[in-house]
Formats: sequence, C-alpha cells, structure tokens
Amino acid sequence: MAALIEPKVLKGFRDFLPPAEMIRRNLTEKIEASFRSFGFVPIDTPALEYAEILLGKGGGETEKQIYRFTDNGERDVALRFDLTVPFARFVALHQAELVFPFKRYHIGKVWRGENTQRGRYREFTQCDFDIIGSDSPAADFEILLIIHAVLLNLGLNVNIKINHRGLFNRFLSHIGQQENSVEILRTVDKLAKVGLAETQQSLAAIAGDTHAQKILAFIGADTCAAGTFDDTLNRITELSGGPSPESERLQQLRQWMQNVYGVNAGFTLDPSITRGLDYYTGVVFETFLTELPDIGSICSGGRYDNLAGLYSKSRISGVGSSIGLDRMIAALESLDRLPVAAGYTAAAIACLKQEHSGLYQALAQQFRQAGIPCEVFLEGAAAGTADHKQLLKQFVLAEKKGLRWVIIPGENPLQDTLTLRDLPTRQNHENLSVKAICSKIHQEI
Amino acid sequence: MAALIEPKVLKGFRDFLPPAEMIRRNLTEKIEASFRSFGFVPIDTPALEYAEILLGKGGGETEKQIYRFTDNGERDVALRFDLTVPFARFVALHQAELVFPFKRYHIGKVWRGENTQRGRYREFTQCDFDIIGSDSPAADFEILLIIHAVLLNLGLNVNIKINHRGLFNRFLSHIGQQENSVEILRTVDKLAKVGLAETQQSLAAIAGDTHAQKILAFIGADTCAAGTFDDTLNRITELSGGPSPESERLQQLRQWMQNVYGVNAGFTLDPSITRGLDYYTGVVFETFLTELPDIGSICSGGRYDNLAGLYSKSRISGVGSSIGLDRMIAALESLDRLPVAAGYTAAAIACLKQEHSGLYQALAQQFRQAGIPCEVFLEGAAAGTADHKQLLKQFVLAEKKGLRWVIIPGENPLQDTLTLRDLPTRQNHENLSVKAICSKIHQEI
Repeated sequence: MAALIEPKVLKGFRDFLPPAEMIRRNLTEKIEASFRSFGFVPIDTPALEYAEILLGKGGGETEKQIYRFTDNGERDVALRFDLTVPFARFVALHQAELVFPFKRYHIGKVWRGENTQRGRYREFTQCDFDIIGSDSPAADFEILLIIHAVLLNLGLNVNIKINHRGLFNRFLSHIGQQENSVEILRTVDKLAKVGLAETQQSLAAIAGDTHAQKILAFIGADTCAAGTFDDTLNRITELSGGPSPESERLQQLRQWMQNVYGVNAGFTLDPSITRGLDYYTGVVFETFLTELPDIGSICSGGRYDNLAGLYSKSRISGVGSSIGLDRMIAALESLDRLPVAAGYTAAAIACLKQEHSGLYQALAQQFRQAGIPCEVFLEGAAAGTADHKQLLKQFVLAEKKGLRWVIIPGENPLQDTLTLRDLPTRQNHENLSVKAICSKIHQEI
Repeated sequence: MAALIEPKVLKGFRDFLPPAEMIRRNLTEKIEASFRSFGFVPIDTPALEYAEILLGKGGGETEKQIYRFTDNGERDVALRFDLTVPFARFVALHQAELVFPFKRYHIGKVWRGENTQRGRYREFTQCDFDIIGSDSPAADFEILLIIHAVLLNLGLNVNIKINHRGLFNRFLSHIGQQENSVEILRTVDKLAKVGLAETQQSLAAIAGDTHAQKILAFIGADTCAAGTFDDTLNRITELSGGPSPESERLQQLRQWMQNVYGVNAGFTLDPSITRGLDYYTGVVFETFLTELPDIGSICSGGRYDNLAGLYSKSRISGVGSSIGLDRMIAALESLDRLPVAAGYTAAAIACLKQEHSGLYQALAQQFRQAGIPCEVFLEGAAAGTADHKQLLKQFVLAEKKGLRWVIIPGENPLQDTLTLRDLPTRQNHENLSVKAICSKIHQEI
C-alpha cells in the first residue's frame, strides 16, 4: 500500500464545516437581501486575471502579496486580491452594455499571500457594493444608508465616521500644503494606530511644526473629534476658507440623514478619516460597531472620480464600499450574537425497517411538499434489535444533527398514523396524521 | 498619460453581467433549496491546495489541465479542479468532527486549463452532493431522488440511467475476464461516443471475439437497451451467474422507485453505463434530459467504497453526484426555459427635486419595510427642465432596468399622496397612499 498523503490545508486557508458554513451562508444571504432591497444587482468576474490588469501601475505591497504565476499557455496570471480592480476592468470592458447609474454588488473570494498572524487569512470573502456613473450626493447617501441597513439587519448598531477628502485638500491648499497632500493624508490615516505624538512628529517632518499644528487642529485631534456633526462641519468649513461645494455636500448629507434617521443618526463627521488610498477623491467613511469599536472598521469606502482610468479613456465616477465577511463574523462572535447554526431541517423520518426506505421517502415527500424540509434516516439497527433500541439510537443521531423532531412511521408507513417525538421534551405525540404534524411543526417554527 | 491596459479576460474565463448572474443565482438558490429539503448541509474548502493532495496518485490528464504553481513560500500549490478530491481530503482531516451518515453539498468554482473549444470553460461551477458513511441502498436511492427533485424543480424531465459496476464485474468474473475489468469498463463507457463497431473492435482486442460478443449482449447493445427495467435486470442477473447482493440492490432500488414515483419513474437500467473512473465500485448513473438527450449527461455519479484512501486509513464509503451548472444553463437556454432575469426590485421612486433625496429614501424605507424592494432614482434632470420631461427620462431608465412601476412623490414626499406609474400599460394611478401602493404591488407580484 502506498504511503498516505497528509490531509492538510495551506497556511492561512480554511475548511468550513457545516456549522460554520451555515452561518456564513445565513449572513451572506441577509447581506444580499439588503443589497437587493435597494435595487442593487449582482455581477461576477473570474478568480484569475492577467497579472498586468490586477497590478495596474504596480504597487509594491500588492506585488509582494499577490498569487501570481505563469499558466500552461505561458500567460502571466494572478488570483484577484480584491473586487475593486476586477470591477474597474469589468466596467472598462462592458460600459456599453451597462445601464447608468449602475448599482452593483459582488460577493466573492479574494486571495492575498500576506502574513497570517492575528487572524488574517489568505483566502477571504468580500462583499462590495458600488454606484457608478453618478456624481450625485444622493449616491453617496445611498451607500451610507445601505451600510446602516445591512448592519442593522444583522443586529449591529454602528457609528459611521465620514469625511470629505476634497475638503481636506481644500484646507491643505488654503495653508499652502497641497503638494504634500498624499503624504499628509496617509499620515493622518494612521493616527488611530500610532497615536497623537508620533503623528505630530511625522506631520512636522513633512510640513513643518506650524502646519502640523494647523493640521491637527483641522482634524480635531485636540478635541478627540468629540464635537457634533454641525460643530465639526462649521470648524472645517471655516479652516478650509469658507463654504465650498465639498462643505455643501457634507451639509446636504447631514440633512438627509436627519430626514431618514432623525438627529441621532449614527453618523459622525470625523476629519481624521482619510482612507490611505489615492484612489478616493470625495466623501470617505469607515464603520465602527458601537459595542466593539476596537475591532476597527468593518466596512469602509468612499467616492472616486476615475474608476477605470487604467483601462479606458472614459472617466467613470462613483461611490462604493466593501464589507469584510470574516471580520464581521469575528465581531458577531465576540458579541455572542452569531446566528445559531441549526440545520435546514427540523424533522427526520425514523428508519424502522430498511426495506421500507422507499415508503419513508414517499412519506417525507408529503412533508417537503407542505414546505417542511424533512430528512429520512437511512439505516435501522441490525436485524433482531428491539424497536425501542433502534429508535433510541436514532433519537441520539437526530439530536447530534440539531433536529427538533423525529417522525416515527407505523408498519404501513403511508397508511398508518404517525408518532411525533419531540426531542427536547422527550415526549411522544401519537396517532397523528401528516397534516396534523405539519401544522404542529409550522406552528412552532 | 500612461498607455491604457487592455481590459480583457483570460481565454476560457467569463464575466457575468447582472442578467446572467441573476439567472445563475436563481438556479443555484433553487438547487440549494432542494438539497436542504433533504437534510443536506453545506461545506466549503479552499480554492488553493497543496498540489500533492489534488494530484494524488498523479493522473496524466489531470496533471496537464491543472493550474499549478509555486507560491511565495515555495509551496507546490494548485487550484482545485473538482470538488471530489478536496472532499476526500476534508473527510480524512475532519472525520472525528462529522456526524455519520454525513450528507453534505458543496457548490463552488473549479478550474481546469483544458481546451476551450465547444463551450468548455476553464472556470466553472459544480454542485456536488454526497452521503458518506452509509452502505445502505437507501443512500443510493436518496441521491437518485435528489437528482429527480432538483431537475423537476427546474422544470426539467429526466431519464436517469442506472447500472451497478459490481454486477458488471461479477459478470466479467463469470466469463473469466475479471483481470481486464478496468479496460473493458472504460471501453464500454465510450460506447455512446464512438459507436458499436469501434467498441466491438476494441473489446475484441482486449478480450477476444467471443468475449466481446458476450459483453455486448450483457450491455444490451444489440437491443439498444430498449428493455424494461425488469427485463434488463433479469438478463444481467442471469448472465452474471444468478441472484447476488448486487442484483438484489438493483431490485430493491427498483421497488422503491415504484413506491415514490409509480411505474414510469424516469429511471432506466442501462448496463452500458459504467462511468470511466476507477473510483466507483457500486451503483453508477447518468442523467439525460428527455427533451434534449444529445446534450449528454448533466448529472452523473455513483457509489464508491473508499473515499479518502489516499489520505486516511479509514475506509469511508459513500454515494454522490455532481451537477454541472454551466451545462444545465446551456440546456435550459436551448429549451428556451431559462428563468427571466428580472431585477429584484419592481418599483423605483422618481427623483423630481434632488434636494429631496433624503425624503425619497425615507419614503422608500416604508416600502422596503412592507417587504417591497424599492430603488430610489438618484438624479433629476437639470434645473429648469419641465417636470414631465424629467419623468419621461426616468420612465425610460426604469424600463431599461426591467422595473414594472415608478412611484412619483409629491412636493412633500412624506405627506402628499403618491402617483403610481404602471410602465407596461403607461397608466398613472393617482392619489394613492403608501399602503394602497403596497397592496397593489403585492397583488400583482
């Protein structure tokens, strides 16, 4: 006999057993239902693309993390590392076939060969949603509403921190620091991670002490961003040289939030939110769980003004966001609020005589047709075993599977009345028809 | 400006635009609902595995087709090319955590770098379902039932052709050809593809003329497998030396089919079905659409007695099958029976004044909360455009998106009555409340 191959999975990759996979599906189905209720439609793209397309201008970090190789046809290919770059390529390729404004969602796996410490995985699921082909603040607003709706639907209360990169840049121009914008925004983006002292030092190194002080005042570092939305908006409007299209857009979003949610809307204006990526040009946001802020942002995004610029001459603007399913699950787990991973069936037909398996299935069909998913047990005990011992064994199996009921057929499974075993109470309800059992089960689930 | 990167996808790979992706999701949701109604639970496994695990003994064809490369950690890895091999590895690794008999399904993408002619893709979706840890014929039967249920649920009538490889081997032993079994079964497997004459020649080359004749008689090649299930079972039972556990199992399955479906059950006994793979040891089957038999088998499978033998000393037997989603979609398309790819929303709120976008969203929430997915249009026409022109533009957009209704708010969107535009009839229903519109829409969908 040949030596066995060790059945291991790659580091950073995971199997999902049924309890975990049922939770994942339950969550993605809920997220998807929220997307759909706002009129978003799904797309899909290949896992594998030309490396040139995924790497674009070639980013140092991306290049190191990407799964890239030469295929059998000598093509330079790679696994997608996010859903944004494939979306940009998709839009460039199919723009003539799309109806704009285009509201799409995409739930799919992505792969990054990054360091696997601290619960980072090399294969993980992202849930992206974007509106492209509209510059309207109503599009920004809708993306924010969806974040709110998705998380509320999962039983989570959130604080969405919003900012406007355009307004930040207007402020930097106002103090003569426009040319350092990229570096300054990246430095501010790390504030929560590295702390105030280090940020101040870094800013001073880039822009000098005086400007560093002004930048920290703009982002409200001294006040810990504790002001109301309106206070903060007044401050940054003033510091950026007075009212502008950017400050008006924030004002407009603020008003609409009050239309839908009232005053305490779960939205904060936080000028220290900049999102490191150059890609964003307008409103940006991060989402924190009110009960678990330390887990970091579980849903970030923003407005960009040139989605597909690497692949197309058309300038297509939009706004979008991405939910990391794995971080969401970790959060729900910490809060002990993961949905229970019960199976999809509540009942099983016991197997008393194996030669009756066809009749048991015919009986189960009657339950399935009444909308009750119903498993059929496939094996009775060995011949000669007493009926009650057979049944006890099957009750144990049913409990292991998380079932609530076992349906015990008679000698003539399709003619005789049935017994319904309620596992949690250990009670048998006897002499029942299929119809009586259906209404009992429907009543309780 | 840098040169543009051409936005192309790899040969054999596909983007799915919303109409196609909605169809795919609709179908997989239906397939999944069928699996769940029988008590099957989902698992997932990584797209990427150690190449050694996927290649196992190393098959010539597999090796040529597989996407295999060295990752950044110098590991020899590959993309999964089916869901069976990862399942075997999964079971070897997790057997202590599973409840047996274990009924699982797995819907996922697989990758093969094969020739892309004739509508074969390099990335495609498989839907696998298996019962492992049971030798019972009731497990074979349940897999057959599920095939029937899934396809019926998609509006397709099928003929499931069944055979038993053990009975075929018993017959070969009986005529002294056991040692040529693998070659003979593979040759017979190609009968439908290469025709009778070539099969006869090949069989004669393997086993001699006399035995070739006997084999053709066993598989019923002369009668075109036209006999009834019972006739054929009688013939192959006799030719294999009389009743045996294998013939009794087929007899048992036959009886159960009649229990559930009556006499014309859509099941045929066809001894020429052998499935080329060595892997199968018991009942095997292929599924043909009665209205489109030439498309070939859209769902094949069988019983195996040692799923995880490459990775574990435990012998785990089971029975399973796999639906190819792409072939299924091609079949439904040929039959003009693809579900319509309407969007998930039936109605949109028109945008008359963009500054009211917050109120339009608040209005839409009322519809969503009543269970009616409702889109909000984000942009009105340029200032100064007459209201009716704005609306006409939005009716056109709604039609392009496949919506049925547009809801037209008044000057005070949350206070005023609404107008409901029925796009197909071009009628406006005026002075309606949210409630009245909800009941009208619920009535019609």
